Amino acid sequence: MTVLDKSGIRNLVSAITKSYSELPDLIRPESEDRINKDSILRVLEELRGLIFPGYFSKKTLRTDYVEYSVGEVLEDLTHTLGKQIGQALRHGSNPPADPKNEAEDITRSFLSRIPDLRKILQTDVEAAYDGDPAAYDKVEIILSYPGLYAITVNRLAHELHLLKVPLIPRMMTEHAHGLTGIDIHPGASLGHHFFIDHGTGIVIGETTVIGNHVKIYQGVTLGALSTRGGRLLDGVKRHPTIEDHVTIYSGASILGGSTVIGEGVVIGSNAFITKSIPERTKVSVKNTDLRFMSDKNPSTEVLQEEFWDYVI
Amino acid sequence: MTVLDKSGIRNLVSAITKSYSELPDLIRPESEDRINKDSILRVLEELRGLIFPGYFSKKTLRTDYVEYSVGEVLEDLTHTLGKQIGQALRHGSNPPADPKNEAEDITRSFLSRIPDLRKILQTDVEAAYDGDPAAYDKVEIILSYPGLYAITVNRLAHELHLLKVPLIPRMMTEHAHGLTGIDIHPGASLGHHFFIDHGTGIVIGETTVIGNHVKIYQGVTLGALSTRGGRLLDGVKRHPTIEDHVTIYSGASILGGSTVIGEGVVIGSNAFITKSIPERTKVSVKNTDLRFMSDKNPSTEVLQEEFWDYVI
Amino acid sequence: MTVLDKSGIRNLVSAITKSYSELPDLIRPESEDRINKDSILRVLEELRGLIFPGYFSKKTLRTDYVEYSVGEVLEDLTHTLGKQIGQALRHGSNPPADPKNEAEDITRSFLSRIPDLRKILQTDVEAAYDGDPAAYDKVEIILSYPGLYAITVNRLAHELHLLKVPLIPRMMTEHAHGLTGIDIHPGASLGHHFFIDHGTGIVIGETTVIGNHVKIYQGVTLGALSTRGGRLLDGVKRHPTIEDHVTIYSGASILGGSTVIGEGVVIGSNAFITKSIPERTKVSVKNTDLRFMSDKNPSTEVLQEEFWDYVI
Repeated sequence: MTVLDKSGIRNLVSAITKSYSELPDLIRPESEDRINKDSILRVLEELRGLIFPGYFSKKTLRTDYVEYSVGEVLEDLTHTLGKQIGQALRHGSNPPADPKNEAEDITRSFLSRIPDLRKILQTDVEAAYDGDPAAYDKVEIILSYPGLYAITVNRLAHELHLLKVPLIPRMMTEHAHGLTGIDIHPGASLGHHFFIDHGTGIVIGETTVIGNHVKIYQGVTLGALSTRGGRLLDGVKRHPTIEDHVTIYSGASILGGSTVIGEGVVIGSNAFITKSIPERTKVSVKNTDLRFMSDKNPSTEVLQEEFWDYVI
Repeated sequence: MTVLDKSGIRNLVSAITKSYSELPDLIRPESEDRINKDSILRVLEELRGLIFPGYFSKKTLRTDYVEYSVGEVLEDLTHTLGKQIGQALRHGSNPPADPKNEAEDITRSFLSRIPDLRKILQTDVEAAYDGDPAAYDKVEIILSYPGLYAITVNRLAHELHLLKVPLIPRMMTEHAHGLTGIDIHPGASLGHHFFIDHGTGIVIGETTVIGNHVKIYQGVTLGALSTRGGRLLDGVKRHPTIEDHVTIYSGASILGGSTVIGEGVVIGSNAFITKSIPERTKVSVKNTDLRFMSDKNPSTEVLQEEFWDYVI
Repeated sequence: MTVLDKSGIRNLVSAITKSYSELPDLIRPESEDRINKDSILRVLEELRGLIFPGYFSKKTLRTDYVEYSVGEVLEDLTHTLGKQIGQALRHGSNPPADPKNEAEDITRSFLSRIPDLRKILQTDVEAAYDGDPAAYDKVEIILSYPGLYAITVNRLAHELHLLKVPLIPRMMTEHAHGLTGIDIHPGASLGHHFFIDHGTGIVIGETTVIGNHVKIYQGVTLGALSTRGGRLLDGVKRHPTIEDHVTIYSGASILGGSTVIGEGVVIGSNAFITKSIPERTKVSVKNTDLRFMSDKNPSTEVLQEEFWDYVI
């Protein structure tokens, strides 16, 4: 292959390295002691294994030995997670005086939360089982429901977010986003008995607050209204509040930090909502006026000629 | 790393193991003879290789030897799939008297369906080629269209579903869901010449029935209306029926077990439909009233002040 | 396992091989010198590494040695990409007289575009940082934003598309589609400062033209209106034109090759648009008529009885 001769290569190398010095944002020198993504993903799998023992491990879970396997995993978790949190703090925008010590405190607090996280995840499994007639049993939900996976990762990442760990929580939720199509920001706060059905395309923004017994279908956005000059809004509540016992059907978009969806509200598919909705209300986009343009009623007003011209 | 000292570790281990005994749903002891996910995924790839020979294998397909390679794959399939079906039956909610024998019968029936499945998948490839001007050729469709992959997996999983195999069909379709964002329940019944374009976000529920020559775009939901007390609806038809030659544009949600979309219907993007639509009808959400609030017509009624306040 | 006895196996093998000769589209004999998908994906990762040095490599980037590592990667790129482009040309629908020479020319042109591609990707990183208050810093955007990944892959694939390389560009964008849920056809032309937020479910069709400073949210379709007899439309502009400074909220579908969304337009969530929109306009589906059917105002007209009957 003689795609490039020696001087061709030299010119291209020098054009590319010149471009490196011109665009410093896109280069990341001396990156060795940054956060290690592989370590973060291993931690995430270990945490999931601690929460749902026997479900995802290659090894068989023997209940007589469960203490020892928990101890072994905790050892790796304290070491690996502690180290990565230290790196995240060191390279974050506001590094603490003693990142190592701070990382140890955070890791300790985080790990002590696992039993409580298990209790709330138990309610999520119940909500999925009660809410989905297609579920074969709870085992199937834990093994294969992407919604439960995304919720599990969010609940873990949210604890780290509350402990002010930079970067790592988002790496975890973006991993779940890639696997499931469900994008829940680590800052979002989820109540118990939370059920996501199917889930692909769901977006739940950073400052969203969700109550208990909420059910959300695929394609739902709980998002922000802001567009331009977004940096000024850092820290401001930009995403909605969803109260208890709300159901939101596929594809509905609910935007805005002062938008409150009241208790017991049901929102139909593809609604676009930017105002608060009072409790126990049912809301839908207007769609009585489905247009019937069959040969049987040819006089129906043609609203979107272009569309129908094409599709006929 | 001294995140936890000896007594700290001991306390945490005991808190976590205590939580294991309190929440029995989340633990899965003695899991070794359950279904093996890696085996199921290998079976799925082998089945795809049998259906589209030469497309996905690392080895070159030599037509002179094709019998031998088919025989070799069938040997592994009968063994591995047979074994996994046996495990699924044994651990299912209603184990048969002789799971091994039952698994063998099912495996035999399933494998004998492969030639017919190839015939119907040929019609799906044709439908994609005829329906998508962006398709370079049929090779590109087979190699890289996620819609064809999801349909292939559904057609395989649906056969196992009809043969009453628990858990395995859903593991297969959830794998396809993870890879493609297309969630077709194994129970859904798909006609021939079925075309999914792009596909991300599509949900097709368990009791959906789809006719022939149907075309569905990304983000379409064929779902259920039920929300609370879902378990009672197990087995009931909860998802729509789509008749022949229907086209459904992106983001439309069609819900309900008695909803029938008649032959030749076209449904526009983001429609929300919960009633039957008569044949040869074209349906759209009302959207003549797109609001133009440019400087040129400032008097236009402001319908959603908050939205526009924010986005200006 | 005696799923199939000797004659059962023989019958099944012969039924399957018979089906191979009946359906020639589904078989791909002598496939060894076709495009190698693993090579294409390695090329894609190497290109991303050249564009964002130090971000994705396992090895630490040492700036003193950067020339050598660039040179080393270019060597593999010229060889591997050159070879794959050659295969693509040879097996394309319109093979050139001298595929090897043509492939070398194309590879050279393509690689020389890298510095310019880096400049435009820098504007995309800036647009994401300015447009998303939830972004921690630019490092987080480069490391974990799926929108930036999909845009990067499209910009690379689009160059190959302009150089008339068959199959490879689409393999690249379908890989990105699988990972991110964002489906941008290699033919789509994207302006600078392009920001995709969240992104799952976005479809941007082959003949779409997008201006500068455009922001698109998850679930947006920029698609075609055509349905039947699609092959005739190969090469025709079928997808919309989006002018500068347009923002399109989640789930909106904009269809049609003559549809032009004018400069500065804002389009609300779930709008369905098949006509051009004049510049500096704000557009939304009609949704003043959200129906409030609480106990407090029980007389509200019931528009979709079936829906509410079910969900109560």
